[in-house]
This record gives sequence, structure tokens and C-alpha cells, in this order.
Amino acid sequence: MPTTSGQFSENDFSQLIDDLVEFVKIPSQSATSELKEQMEVAAKWLASKLESAGVENIEILNTAKHPTVYGDWLHAKDAPTVLIYGHYDVQPPEPLELWDSPPFKADLREGNLYGRGTADDKGGIICALHAVKSLLAADQNPKLNLKFCFEGEEEIGSPNLPGLIATEKERFSAALAISVDGGTWDDKRPQLLLGLRGTIAGELHVKGPTHDLHSGIYGGAVLNPLEALCRILSSMRDPNGRITIEGFYDDVVEFSTEARKAMNEIPDIDTLIKQGSGVEQLHGEPGYTPIEQTWIRPSLEINGISGGHSGSGPKTVIPAEAHAKLTCRLAPNQSPESIVSLIEAHVAEHTPCGVEAIFESESFGAKPYSLSRDHPAVGLLKHILSDVYGLEPYEVRVGGSVPIYAPFKEILGIDTISIGCATPNSNLHAPNEFVSVNSLRSCVLTLLKLFEELNQVLKP
Amino acid sequence: MPTTSGQFSENDFSQLIDDLVEFVKIPSQSATSELKEQMEVAAKWLASKLESAGVENIEILNTAKHPTVYGDWLHAKDAPTVLIYGHYDVQPPEPLELWDSPPFKADLREGNLYGRGTADDKGGIICALHAVKSLLAADQNPKLNLKFCFEGEEEIGSPNLPGLIATEKERFSAALAISVDGGTWDDKRPQLLLGLRGTIAGELHVKGPTHDLHSGIYGGAVLNPLEALCRILSSMRDPNGRITIEGFYDDVVEFSTEARKAMNEIPDIDTLIKQGSGVEQLHGEPGYTPIEQTWIRPSLEINGISGGHSGSGPKTVIPAEAHAKLTCRLAPNQSPESIVSLIEAHVAEHTPCGVEAIFESESFGAKPYSLSRDHPAVGLLKHILSDVYGLEPYEVRVGGSVPIYAPFKEILGIDTISIGCATPNSNLHAPNEFVSVNSLRSCVLTLLKLFEELNQVLKP
Repeated sequence: MPTTSGQFSENDFSQLIDDLVEFVKIPSQSATSELKEQMEVAAKWLASKLESAGVENIEILNTAKHPTVYGDWLHAKDAPTVLIYGHYDVQPPEPLELWDSPPFKADLREGNLYGRGTADDKGGIICALHAVKSLLAADQNPKLNLKFCFEGEEEIGSPNLPGLIATEKERFSAALAISVDGGTWDDKRPQLLLGLRGTIAGELHVKGPTHDLHSGIYGGAVLNPLEALCRILSSMRDPNGRITIEGFYDDVVEFSTEARKAMNEIPDIDTLIKQGSGVEQLHGEPGYTPIEQTWIRPSLEINGISGGHSGSGPKTVIPAEAHAKLTCRLAPNQSPESIVSLIEAHVAEHTPCGVEAIFESESFGAKPYSLSRDHPAVGLLKHILSDVYGLEPYEVRVGGSVPIYAPFKEILGIDTISIGCATPNSNLHAPNEFVSVNSLRSCVLTLLKLFEELNQVLKP
Repeated sequence: MPTTSGQFSENDFSQLIDDLVEFVKIPSQSATSELKEQMEVAAKWLASKLESAGVENIEILNTAKHPTVYGDWLHAKDAPTVLIYGHYDVQPPEPLELWDSPPFKADLREGNLYGRGTADDKGGIICALHAVKSLLAADQNPKLNLKFCFEGEEEIGSPNLPGLIATEKERFSAALAISVDGGTWDDKRPQLLLGLRGTIAGELHVKGPTHDLHSGIYGGAVLNPLEALCRILSSMRDPNGRITIEGFYDDVVEFSTEARKAMNEIPDIDTLIKQGSGVEQLHGEPGYTPIEQTWIRPSLEINGISGGHSGSGPKTVIPAEAHAKLTCRLAPNQSPESIVSLIEAHVAEHTPCGVEAIFESESFGAKPYSLSRDHPAVGLLKHILSDVYGLEPYEVRVGGSVPIYAPFKEILGIDTISIGCATPNSNLHAPNEFVSVNSLRSCVLTLLKLFEELNQVLKP
């Protein structure tokens, strides 16, 4: 088990935990418009913490929605610059009744700290803050320049950060991005992240009658919008799990037999998915294993349906409207814009007579991202992770999305390596999200070692 | 336009409106368990009104859920007895934001009184109360004995009234039931009701993962309960609108060509359904016209779906559960119990691997009901309606259900004729429910004439 050592003491670590507990208290839910003020509270809290860590030129950069916190420390001459990325926004905590402790009051139980954002991504940000604080306070003559980009819109697809980076390209320029929105394979083994899926989101709206109807008087002669909604949604996939939207797979990169073989050699992946979900029988696109289905194949999920009566007891009504929230995960090479167009076309073609249906996409999307295993920072990170964790990292892809990695590449021309404290069982986006205290320790140590050695592989 | 006359004065009618406004104020929603006390308030209010109308032996008969209000007036010697039926419970008012005036504060606009229950069925009950008050007050030496049965569970399927009647068969015995839960063809033309569809209700529950999952990490390898729900629901009907649950139509009575021809001769039915629903293109079981689809064919409706994220913005979640509320309307000769069994079997057979699904039926149901056009009271009512409205009634069936008609026949051996003030555009079960003042006038007059003449066609 790794322990803190050297310039990072047990006392420092205890302060790190205190800061994370304080940070979790701020309900910085980017998707919940009623909580917009809390986003500003979180941004200001973060700015003041950066300042006390020794970071300079701190600015809260406003965007069309939630601000990005910037800061830098640029006193290492002839040394490379890295851009440290994280997000201070969190997912909504609902359903609240399934939490064993309040989501915004961090609770330490059996070596784990429970609370919304502990793992995604406030834990990562706090590790970065304390690693930097240690680096700058220890008067170690750092051989690395640091820039910080902590955004508040990751959970809603980072709609404004690419634009901000494009406008302020010089401010954000660096040789490499280090994202602290990463994780480990499990609580013992680290991972090297070589790819992420992209995302799109939208809502399917179906409208039928001008008002709710009595099912006795009209039932049988009028198409029910909820039925039309189910039919349209069911038409998007075949019963085996393959997406049947025309053209959906056209741009998907087929991975080589060797690459697929390597993925499938990671042990126990099916068991992990079953244990993590509580599902006994997995279900996905035929011809691909579960690891492939979640890493390199696209998916389409219904995230919520609403319409009609949801209170107690029966109500004999044909509702006027029905709605479904959808998201897709995009495989390497798929474009968010094309996938939205394909869904729009599919809905238009599969809307039954008697209702109107439209797919309204959200300003929420992420391109898929791939990182070459030959990048010199990947080799260094592999070495450091092996050292910190005492186990060689698995080379992995992740089915989730961090929207900004692709724009970092496209706009700033830099790759992103990922580090973080989330584990697959951390209940990300779900009730009882947690981070293990050990993961936080290892994350800080990894960052400190990276800060020491990155100048050996990056150009000034 | 009919006007009040004879023993029923304009002053009496003004009192009737005042009473209806007062009655609407009580939010007697039988489906809403939090409002159980309001059901008792409504029952007591009704009992006191019966008493002041001159009715005797008033009792509030408790059931397992909401009480039935009984009363009688039995002083007409050698005269027949009728059982007057109505229900004082109403549908929930949601969605509240679609009401132009508060649902429980009756509002008179352009000759219509708006409010929950004005047409279904508080208007009908108030007409019966005032007709009886007039009959008993005028010292007319009535040639008819009266019994009253006003229940509080019609909107939840009258689960306890059949049992109450079976237990107290003698108390409720009569030669004919007169239901005031009826209506007219439109605001000018009356109707003779010859049949009603039955009903069943239940909820489809689908369970998948043990907790909500991150769609990035699990999306593509785990069956989403919302998708499974849509697939099961879509499997219950073909895209043309025919129900595909095995055996669903087996017991349905096929009506004769002549009977179907007669129904279809009622003019403008398609236009009425289109206007009443605001739907431009009707949709229903192939081979049947819209009037047949809603009168003599069964239907299956999704009344509500819930599951996953329904708040603002996107949430990349695979929900652990999904739920759909369903009701069926049953055609003549279908049995509620068999239809529930067929749906249960269908769900069991069509549940995809990876989720659990169950159809849980509500204690809510009604058998379909048919009344012979040769019943002597039907002939009398036809004559009276023609007289009151100045137009001959259409012989109709109604796609809705009044659960107690079939038990009245089975337990008490009596038929039920229907009278009421609802019109097809009354927005029953929907926002902005209303009754027209003219309909209330005609309803009272019809009842008064029936009370005068029924002794000519019924046996003591």
C-alpha cells in the first residue's frame, strides 16, 4: 500500500481530506439551473485555494454558462509547461432516497469518503491542488511550469470550454495536458488511459392530442404519444442490442485483431461489469465482447422517460405528450454532429401517423479521443504508476467521455494524459459515490513524481 | 333550448348552481391517498344535502376505502322503487398548469361551469338532489319509491361497492337503477346509452441493475430497463393498432353487420373525435371504424411512464428501474380477470434477458355492460329525452366504464339507464373540465319527468 512520504506529510494529507470535505459541501451541479449561484461559489472557493497553494495570475473566466478557473506558475526557466485540467461541477444527486449518507456532506466509512463529487472530479482537483502546494512550498526549484484549467461544465458536455480555449489559445498553450479526471483499474492496480468514447445528448419529444384525453372516450381511435414514443425508441435498436439507425456505425473505426485480443486479455472484465452493475446477464451488440462494447463500440441509452400520470393509483388518461432523454457514447472516429443528424433523420422517418415527434439535441457533446501508446509522457507515466502502485498499469480505454481532450488536441495541439482517484466501483453519477482514501494518497504521489520528471520527456 | 318550468323554478335552479359550486370545492380525489379525509367531508356534505331534500334513513356506509352514501324515500304504496346512482369522487386535477381557472374553484364562463367534477359526476348528483327535493317538497304524492347510492370509488374502479351491495342486497333492491353518471351526445342532442366498455388497470415494473449506472462505463454491455420497458410495451400492439397479446380478442363479441351499420350512421363521428382530441389523423385497429374502435372494440393504453432522469438538462445514467401504468378498455363479453392473466403471461414471455419484469394489476376493474333497447324504461326514456331536448336521442354505446352497472345486473338483477350532463367536449379526466348550464337544466327536467312516469313501465 503506498504511503505519503518525503515532502508530502501525513499532516498535509489530513489537510487534503479536510479540503475535499469542504469542497463537497458546495452543490455545484452544472445541469441544475436553479443552482447556478453555487457554481460561482465553487469557482471562487477553488480560486482562493489555488492562491494559497502559491499559484499566480488567478482568474475566473466567465463563459455563457459556468466559469472556468485559470491560474499559472511560470517561473521554471527553459522548462516545459503543462496544463492541469479538472472539473468542479458534479452530477445531480437524485434519487436522494438511495444515498446512505447526505450527498453533500462527505462521510468517511471504512476507508472510503462518500459524497457527490468525491471521485468525479473534486477528489482529483484536490489532489492536484495539494501536490502543487507541496511542490511550490517545498522550495524545490521546480523544473516544470504549470497552468490550471478547472471548468464547471464537464458534466453537461463542456459546451463553452472549447470556445474559450480557441479565443485564449496563448493563455492555455502548453506541451501536455494532465487531466485529474481519471481513475485506476481498481483499488490496487493503476491504468494508462489510451482512449475515451465521445457523447451526444438530446431529447425526443412526441406530441399527439392537444390535451390529455379520457381513455374510455378516445381509447382505440387515437394514437397514444407514449406508445408512439416507445415504438420510435424500440426502432432504434434490434432486440439483440445492435443500433439500427441507418448509417450509425458507418464511421466507427474497426480495431485490429491484435488490439482486440490485447483488450480481452485483461482478466475478469465480464465479472467486473456484472459485479459493478448487479446484472447477472450482460446484453450488448452481437460480435463484440463486453469490454469491446463499452470501450470501442458506440452505445445509445434512454436516460429517462416522462409522460402521463406518475402519481399514485391509476388514471385513465391518454397524455398529450411524451418525452425521452437520450445519450449516445461514440466510438473512435464518430462525429457528434453526424450522429445527431442520423438520429433526427431516423425519428423523422419512424414517426407514426397521428403524432409529431422531434429529436432536440442538447449543446452537449464530446468527440471520442485516442492517445498513442508511443507518446513519451505515456512511457514516463507507466513507469511512475508501476512505482507508486507496485503493479504495472493496464493499458485501457474508457467508455465514458471527457469532452475537452479532443479540443485540447485540435486547438492546442497537445495530448492529454489522465490521472485520478476514481475506481470502477466508485458509483460515479449514481447514489453513494465515493473515493477511497488510498486512491487519494496514490493520486497525489503520482502527480508529485510526474512534476519531478516530466521535464525529462517534454520540450520547453 | 329547454328551460326550467312547472314545479322547478329559476330560483330552484340558482340554488342548484350554488350547491354544485360548493360541492366542487371539496377535492374528493379517490386515487390520492393523502386526500382520504376529503372523501369523508364530501360524503357528509352529501348526506346533509339528501336530508334537506327530504330523503330519509340516510347512512354513510363505510367500506375498505371510501364510504357510500345511502338514503331512501319509500312512502309510495304499490309503486315501483328505483335506485339512483352517482359518484362523488373525482379524478386528480394534474397537470395543474394547464387549467385556466383553479380546478376546485368552479368558474362560470360563457354559459359553462369549469371545475374538476362539474361534469363527472358532481353535476349529475346535484341534478338528482334537486329533482328529488322538488319532487318531495311539492307534495305531489309521488308514485315512485326512491333509494340512493352515491359512491366514492368510481374513479378507482369501484373496488368495494359490489361487495357492499352483495352484503346488503335487500337494502339496495329495486326495479331499476338510474345512473346520473351519464351524458348527452352534444349540447343539443340527447343519447340513449346501451352499453359501456369494461376496464382493467395495472403497472408494468422493470428492474435491471441494482443501482443507477454511469452510461459511459456500462453503456453497451447492460440492458437498460427503460429500453426493455419500451420493447415490452411495443410488443403488445402491432404498428397498425391491433393488440398482439395472445388471446386478447378471443372473448370479444362480434356485433352484427346491422348493428355496426346503425352505429356508423350517426353523423360526423370521425370529425367529433378529431375535434375533441385535436388529432388530425386517427389511428386504431384495422377493419373497424373509429366509432367501433371506441364503442365495441377493446383498447390498451399506456397512461404514464416513469424512470430515470426527468429533471432539467442531460444526465448520462442507465436507471435501475422503469415503470409504466396501463389500462385496458374491455369490449362486451371480455372478462377483467382473463385480460389481466393474458397481460401477465405476455409480459413473462416478452421480458428480455438481463432484466426482470412483472405486471402488477390494480384492484381496479369493470366488466363491460350492455342494456337491451327493448327494456320498457328505455322506451320511456327515449320519449322523455325527445320531449325535453326537442331532438330524438341517438342510441349509443360509450367507450368509458361505470364499473357498477354490471354488478347491479348480476347481484340485484336490475338494469341501469343513464342520464347526465356531460358532453363529449366536457374535458372529462382532463384539465378545464366543465359542464354547460343548459345541460344541467335539461338533466333536472329529464329526471323530474322520469320520476312522474316510471310507474307506468315498472312493476311495484
